[in-house]
Amino acid sequence: MSDIITFGEIMLRLSPPNYQRVIQASSFNATYGGAEANVATSLAQFGLETDYVTKLPKNFLGDAAFNELRRYGVGVSSIVRGGGRLGIYFAERGASQRGSTVLYDRYGSAFQQSAAETWNWEKIFAGARWFHFTGITPALGKNVAQACLDACTTARKMGLTVSCDLNFRSKLWSQEQARQTMTELCHYVDVCIANEEDAYSVFGIQTDQKALLSGKLDLDAYKQTAKKLHERFGFHKVAITLRRSFSASDNNWSALLLDEEGLYHSREYSIHIVDRIGGGDAFGAGLLYGLLKGMHGRDALEFGVAAGCLKQTIDGDFNLSTVAEIQKLAHGDASGRVQR
Amino acid sequence: MSDIITFGEIMLRLSPPNYQRVIQASSFNATYGGAEANVATSLAQFGLETDYVTKLPKNFLGDAAFNELRRYGVGVSSIVRGGGRLGIYFAERGASQRGSTVLYDRYGSAFQQSAAETWNWEKIFAGARWFHFTGITPALGKNVAQACLDACTTARKMGLTVSCDLNFRSKLWSQEQARQTMTELCHYVDVCIANEEDAYSVFGIQTDQKALLSGKLDLDAYKQTAKKLHERFGFHKVAITLRRSFSASDNNWSALLLDEEGLYHSREYSIHIVDRIGGGDAFGAGLLYGLLKGMHGRDALEFGVAAGCLKQTIDGDFNLSTVAEIQKLAHGDASGRVQR
Amino acid sequence: MSDIITFGEIMLRLSPPNYQRVIQASSFNATYGGAEANVATSLAQFGLETDYVTKLPKNFLGDAAFNELRRYGVGVSSIVRGGGRLGIYFAERGASQRGSTVLYDRYGSAFQQSAAETWNWEKIFAGARWFHFTGITPALGKNVAQACLDACTTARKMGLTVSCDLNFRSKLWSQEQARQTMTELCHYVDVCIANEEDAYSVFGIQTDQKALLSGKLDLDAYKQTAKKLHERFGFHKVAITLRRSFSASDNNWSALLLDEEGLYHSREYSIHIVDRIGGGDAFGAGLLYGLLKGMHGRDALEFGVAAGCLKQTIDGDFNLSTVAEIQKLAHGDASGRVQR
Amino acid sequence: MSDIITFGEIMLRLSPPNYQRVIQASSFNATYGGAEANVATSLAQFGLETDYVTKLPKNFLGDAAFNELRRYGVGVSSIVRGGGRLGIYFAERGASQRGSTVLYDRYGSAFQQSAAETWNWEKIFAGARWFHFTGITPALGKNVAQACLDACTTARKMGLTVSCDLNFRSKLWSQEQARQTMTELCHYVDVCIANEEDAYSVFGIQTDQKALLSGKLDLDAYKQTAKKLHERFGFHKVAITLRRSFSASDNNWSALLLDEEGLYHSREYSIHIVDRIGGGDAFGAGLLYGLLKGMHGRDALEFGVAAGCLKQTIDGDFNLSTVAEIQKLAHGDASGRVQR
Amino acid sequence: MSDIITFGEIMLRLSPPNYQRVIQASSFNATYGGAEANVATSLAQFGLETDYVTKLPKNFLGDAAFNELRRYGVGVSSIVRGGGRLGIYFAERGASQRGSTVLYDRYGSAFQQSAAETWNWEKIFAGARWFHFTGITPALGKNVAQACLDACTTARKMGLTVSCDLNFRSKLWSQEQARQTMTELCHYVDVCIANEEDAYSVFGIQTDQKALLSGKLDLDAYKQTAKKLHERFGFHKVAITLRRSFSASDNNWSALLLDEEGLYHSREYSIHIVDRIGGGDAFGAGLLYGLLKGMHGRDALEFGVAAGCLKQTIDGDFNLSTVAEIQKLAHGDASGRVQR
Amino acid sequence: MSDIITFGEIMLRLSPPNYQRVIQASSFNATYGGAEANVATSLAQFGLETDYVTKLPKNFLGDAAFNELRRYGVGVSSIVRGGGRLGIYFAERGASQRGSTVLYDRYGSAFQQSAAETWNWEKIFAGARWFHFTGITPALGKNVAQACLDACTTARKMGLTVSCDLNFRSKLWSQEQARQTMTELCHYVDVCIANEEDAYSVFGIQTDQKALLSGKLDLDAYKQTAKKLHERFGFHKVAITLRRSFSASDNNWSALLLDEEGLYHSREYSIHIVDRIGGGDAFGAGLLYGLLKGMHGRDALEFGVAAGCLKQTIDGDFNLSTVAEIQKLAHGDASGRVQR
Repeated sequence: MSDIITFGEIMLRLSPPNYQRVIQASSFNATYGGAEANVATSLAQFGLETDYVTKLPKNFLGDAAFNELRRYGVGVSSIVRGGGRLGIYFAERGASQRGSTVLYDRYGSAFQQSAAETWNWEKIFAGARWFHFTGITPALGKNVAQACLDACTTARKMGLTVSCDLNFRSKLWSQEQARQTMTELCHYVDVCIANEEDAYSVFGIQTDQKALLSGKLDLDAYKQTAKKLHERFGFHKVAITLRRSFSASDNNWSALLLDEEGLYHSREYSIHIVDRIGGGDAFGAGLLYGLLKGMHGRDALEFGVAAGCLKQTIDGDFNLSTVAEIQKLAHGDASGRVQR
Repeated sequence: MSDIITFGEIMLRLSPPNYQRVIQASSFNATYGGAEANVATSLAQFGLETDYVTKLPKNFLGDAAFNELRRYGVGVSSIVRGGGRLGIYFAERGASQRGSTVLYDRYGSAFQQSAAETWNWEKIFAGARWFHFTGITPALGKNVAQACLDACTTARKMGLTVSCDLNFRSKLWSQEQARQTMTELCHYVDVCIANEEDAYSVFGIQTDQKALLSGKLDLDAYKQTAKKLHERFGFHKVAITLRRSFSASDNNWSALLLDEEGLYHSREYSIHIVDRIGGGDAFGAGLLYGLLKGMHGRDALEFGVAAGCLKQTIDGDFNLSTVAEIQKLAHGDASGRVQR
Repeated sequence: MSDIITFGEIMLRLSPPNYQRVIQASSFNATYGGAEANVATSLAQFGLETDYVTKLPKNFLGDAAFNELRRYGVGVSSIVRGGGRLGIYFAERGASQRGSTVLYDRYGSAFQQSAAETWNWEKIFAGARWFHFTGITPALGKNVAQACLDACTTARKMGLTVSCDLNFRSKLWSQEQARQTMTELCHYVDVCIANEEDAYSVFGIQTDQKALLSGKLDLDAYKQTAKKLHERFGFHKVAITLRRSFSASDNNWSALLLDEEGLYHSREYSIHIVDRIGGGDAFGAGLLYGLLKGMHGRDALEFGVAAGCLKQTIDGDFNLSTVAEIQKLAHGDASGRVQR
Repeated sequence: MSDIITFGEIMLRLSPPNYQRVIQASSFNATYGGAEANVATSLAQFGLETDYVTKLPKNFLGDAAFNELRRYGVGVSSIVRGGGRLGIYFAERGASQRGSTVLYDRYGSAFQQSAAETWNWEKIFAGARWFHFTGITPALGKNVAQACLDACTTARKMGLTVSCDLNFRSKLWSQEQARQTMTELCHYVDVCIANEEDAYSVFGIQTDQKALLSGKLDLDAYKQTAKKLHERFGFHKVAITLRRSFSASDNNWSALLLDEEGLYHSREYSIHIVDRIGGGDAFGAGLLYGLLKGMHGRDALEFGVAAGCLKQTIDGDFNLSTVAEIQKLAHGDASGRVQR
Repeated sequence: MSDIITFGEIMLRLSPPNYQRVIQASSFNATYGGAEANVATSLAQFGLETDYVTKLPKNFLGDAAFNELRRYGVGVSSIVRGGGRLGIYFAERGASQRGSTVLYDRYGSAFQQSAAETWNWEKIFAGARWFHFTGITPALGKNVAQACLDACTTARKMGLTVSCDLNFRSKLWSQEQARQTMTELCHYVDVCIANEEDAYSVFGIQTDQKALLSGKLDLDAYKQTAKKLHERFGFHKVAITLRRSFSASDNNWSALLLDEEGLYHSREYSIHIVDRIGGGDAFGAGLLYGLLKGMHGRDALEFGVAAGCLKQTIDGDFNLSTVAEIQKLAHGDASGRVQR
Repeated sequence: MSDIITFGEIMLRLSPPNYQRVIQASSFNATYGGAEANVATSLAQFGLETDYVTKLPKNFLGDAAFNELRRYGVGVSSIVRGGGRLGIYFAERGASQRGSTVLYDRYGSAFQQSAAETWNWEKIFAGARWFHFTGITPALGKNVAQACLDACTTARKMGLTVSCDLNFRSKLWSQEQARQTMTELCHYVDVCIANEEDAYSVFGIQTDQKALLSGKLDLDAYKQTAKKLHERFGFHKVAITLRRSFSASDNNWSALLLDEEGLYHSREYSIHIVDRIGGGDAFGAGLLYGLLKGMHGRDALEFGVAAGCLKQTIDGDFNLSTVAEIQKLAHGDASGRVQR
């Protein structure tokens, strides 16, 4: 019986060491991750009871992914084992002007091939307070989208709060497909997380382009995007992540939150990046943690942004930071001094 | 324009370092291989002009596999690039009583999805003397089996010698499917390579079980198997590899050859194994090299067995031995002294 | 609520890569282990509900050890966190005539410093069927020995079966200390595991030395040792592991079991060793698994010996073999053939 | 039959991992490279037919260098094998205020010892359009300088365009030796690549020192240098690379080109450096690619500079970037966003 | 017979590779270090005769630490071998907003347990000119503090110059304990090195807080701190290191020196950090080198700061830079150009 | 002032990891070694005062080799630094039927180019008891051979015992050259170490070939060889190492010694080899240690053979075993049990 249920795929991630490209690599570092699994792991690291719902193949790769979730404290009792592959993704770390590249190799994965009725949501949600998914899950196929919809309706029925990170992936579906499916799902969503590209690609909500091109953030434009999302779907809370990518090595990172009480913009961090994959997921988890713990929106936002910042200084998809470390950063110590 | 054309898949091979199991691995060594690609690479290493015919995806994994063939001198001008994944296989190295385990992850590969008419065999075979494939290629699907048959009929028409290693894989097709397809293909085959399990699984030719259970080889039983294969299909030459597996670390290894002139059994090597995958392919390549170079059958057999032996002392699928090293072993120096 | 409760320390294990000695090493492979933790991990791998009882420091090393148990499915809800270090041990892998060397660096560990009353055994044992510890635990100090005795008396009171692996370590205590403490504890033990050195060092029960010096096993001598142990303490079952060490690379390995019905000697395996540490623990876990699953003593013994054999082909303390793999070996397939 | 012929040495490059210094290293990463080989590899990566002309020893190091060229698609049919060593260079990666250091260990290399008449230039140039070399090649000895001169005269005679990167190396020859030899060779050169140090060291053409000391580029001074080079030798095109080195970690990077139509200065990139070795070679290859593909000088320059920039974000001597990646950067997207 | 004697602990340092956190690490890089050992190693690298005084256990870890000192030229003839552990410390490298973290695991080390009378200072100091220690040594226990005091009084008596780096570590002792012990020791100290935190924590000398918070250095405040230290204890020279930590990746670094002739502030370096541990020790060693070589205070200061800067671009505790490299940087070339 | 002086080259040794071949390697493990340096290091490990005499280049490779000697306690005060390269050798580890291969790359090394008068032998030998060299040193050139002869005559004059390991290397000189030079040098040699190939190649002393081909050792033949060596040159002691190479993985290893009192054959060890390079050097060092410590010839021989055996279980050229470990093996415990 967990507080939070997360639903999605988890993949083997293969990355060449250091800054090598795949065509020069003679080995890969192996970790595990995926947008929703990253959120679940963060929440478990933070000490919340969280269950991950997915399907994994019955082979040693499925075992390894299963164990990795368990290792970091994620509940695995709702994971179904069965046919299909373990999805894989290859990630080349970029540097400076060379962007990171990601190659998804998830065709035919056990999760992608899972039937809509694989999971018993009423049983899974018993005793839980929150359900989280991202736009990647329904993008994987009609079966999975249906399972997602079943989860949403059951969650609503059972009184769970539902959160969704739009996470549009153009390689998985078209904007039209996304809009249709996500529009339906978003009727059940209480807390929506997005960036300006998601807002545009999924819902056609355009953030004023001047904001993107100018050197500094045009916060008003982003606030408009948040408000439009709120108005369109009645989300209780809308969070927008703001990444300014100067290069693959240096990004600025902040977020804003529109909630029932107001609209806040967090501190902005200048990050010298170790691994930016999972930064948005760490933000989402941090925000959810704050909200679940009853923090004020402003504080939950700062906690989320600090969590997302720290993630990007850590190798792998998972944010292996502690609540104390995140709080310390959120409260202002970004000096990176040695802790001894 | 190459002497020898080989047709099959090439996969990314991922192996945990040392003797780690996949569930404890935090990295994988990355090499490339596949039964037919292993043969092609050996032949190129031996200095023969050889072309590999396959289909690879248009992404950095496809590039990496392409480059690896090129690196070792295999001709790549007949490789088609296009949709689908790069097949992957995971190989855990065993030791002592723990056998090596292999997990194929080739579902939806570009090669597996390739249309039968992908290749223009007349053009590919122009000027060539020999065509080689293995039973894995037709097992990948009807489309590929058809391409294989087209290759065989064209090869026959154009006067190429055709060789085939039966290589039965129960995870790819049933014995019935194998029998039907391989029976048709074998009508075009001049040189057949097999072990006793292949002979039984594909053609129902049983090697006297006493031979398998007794401590020493019952050569007569294997000779019968070779003769039956010869009689059934009219193969000009039949080679049978004989592996006695005492443990994952220690195997005995020899082979016999039935040709137009007689039936020979090679020396038997006691191998302390580094990596046994590709041993049979290295044997096949060695035998073909000997035959193409006009060696007497007895010598070609010894060259093949020594090649297969050395491969098993080398990491990865490919036999990165030189002709000189193999000749030295085939002529009797197995002392493993330092070369300085 | 678990079936089996295990009690002991878990340490960080640092091993130079490959066959390096510590004085030439520039890195260490980091795993986690300890006699009782190894048993717990095996049992969890086999699918049993098992809880590990220990104390770990509140720092990232304690977290890492905690996570490693969780990763392999061991229950961690009875682990107490608090002051002291994480115990460490350094293990140099030997080869041929050079034996492996182990340097314990557990002085001042959180577990060693834990007060006897740290754990509430009644609560921990609620619903459990079995309690397991080894002679290392009481050797760590009077406080820990007292906790062990409390656990034993509580287990007896609550009807749990108690098993103990004598595991004498001369660096931790003297033979006299061991005899006094273990004599008291053994009154609560139902299943005793030992080798002939333990029997002698702890209880002065000498196995006829001719057996040790002769090339082959003098089983009768070992049987006498088992019987004497049985008679002295009334153990229901006594298991004796028999290792014949030809070199650091090659050992023979078997065991015998005396139970209510008879006395059996298992198959003997000739092992080409990858990592022998934890072999005895894997045997213990395998035996316990068999007994808990209601196997006949003879079968439980064979399962345990096969488990111990496979462990020694795997890097690290833990036996990451599956029940199916062990059963396959126990039923006779030691050929180490590739599984594909 | 290749479009472009490049002539020079290729060495084994040994670099300690990460930021280690050689005196603390217990391993070296092994790659292969050299100024001209780096150009050839880039051109092959871009899809041009290119042949590398060199001499390599007949041992496994020579084989490895040969294979590495082949791996990345460089033509190897004009490589001669024979006596001497494989040249080696050791490269310590610098960081911040600690510059990278390079130790050449090429004494007695097969290439350095090769006789002037080793290659048949008429045969090598048959069908080719372009010949490229750098100032390192003639600096290796009179024999090699003579071969280079033979190549130049033959190229001129056969109508090939000739390009040269001055690449002055003070450890290989004196300024006087360089001036004498390069003056003779440059009479055959159509496209000259240099930086301001080369211009001064080889030809005594001084770039106004104010430009070097001031915080910003004094482009006029560099333009004068380009014009003087053009006037002195009648080069059709002169390219000057402009590196502003703030530290070993951060450089600014641009170039200017003087051609028949005008004088252009490229965009300037602020690079957070992964490995700066080979940046100039990647620029040269990019420029040549642009010119061979018939781009306008301005575009060829931008392509070259972007290529040089991306190289410096990649480990090893070779620029393993694709034409598409370089074009994307040259056309303005330097944000380093994740490609997914 | 050495010029300089240094006294303190040396520990095994274990760091996860790259930017991994300990809880995700499967290996550790192993080096050796400690504040005083780092100074000794630098001095030996600079060519001075230096002896390290410590106690190491009689096991392979003690051997390894002993060898590492010897490797870099430190005299080891005054090292005593005996009981206790080798101290260990775990260091996680931080990045950007995530600070590095250090976990000391030195409880029960041989050095910490050494009796005050372990060393014969008269014999050790025979012929020496200088004695150096840091505030960490007396913090390890009363026995060690007593040994330190004995060393100081003997050094004074024998005419050695004594230097001390305050190096306050709050995990080792309280401010009160430090003040009492260091006040006594500092009466024997000629050259004092500190940063503003040490000055405050040990002696309650507060540096004006505006200086710390403002973007730029308030040098006057630091100068006051130096003067107060000088006045309180009569130090002949006081050096204050000034680190401005923008993030774990980027620091500014300078120092000031108050000596008999005046008060100087060095150049300030903007460092992109590879490994900041040992930067202060490298500064101390550089300063001592300058003073021992008779440099003017201003030059000794610049040498020390440049040494400290270069250290932070090198992995591990030790500053493996040469005098020539440091001089080059101190004299102004911070461009990080390739040395070839 | 050392007891033993050793004279020879020390090289950087580069080995691909595990069982990789050089043509597949993307990294090399870096160690340092050479026949005479290996002896010196062993002797220093055993606690003897030993100085190594060689010449090393003034660059970071020379520094690294210098430091490595110092690390293991070898005296370095007689090492001259100057022009030329550091010699390198590449070593591929073999396995089973694939022998290890060694590629020497020592052309133009500082040692090889050193003038005969580089060293002042009278000064070097002052206070020493023993001088050791091997046949590799004079094989490097006339200059080095002359230095060796100077050393021998000075040693004789100053009363040092002289030992020599014949160590014939056919890649360095012809049998004729070796015979001429070694005949002259051996007049000064008291203790000669050889194997049967050295005896034949250098001095034409043939060991009865039946001995080599038969399965078991024909000791009498080897004894004849020892006696002939003794008679020809008047060596006080002659040691012959006997290696029976079944494969690259498995060798038998023993030695015999002819001294003033008799002729002894040691125990024979069956070694499962980790790294056989340096086995003979470790034997020589063990024998010398025994003789220097005044052991009986029989015991010195057993110590040497056990030392050589243990070396072959350790990675790298150096025998990092302790006297205690060697004594334990020499006295009969070859079981390879875990030391804990």
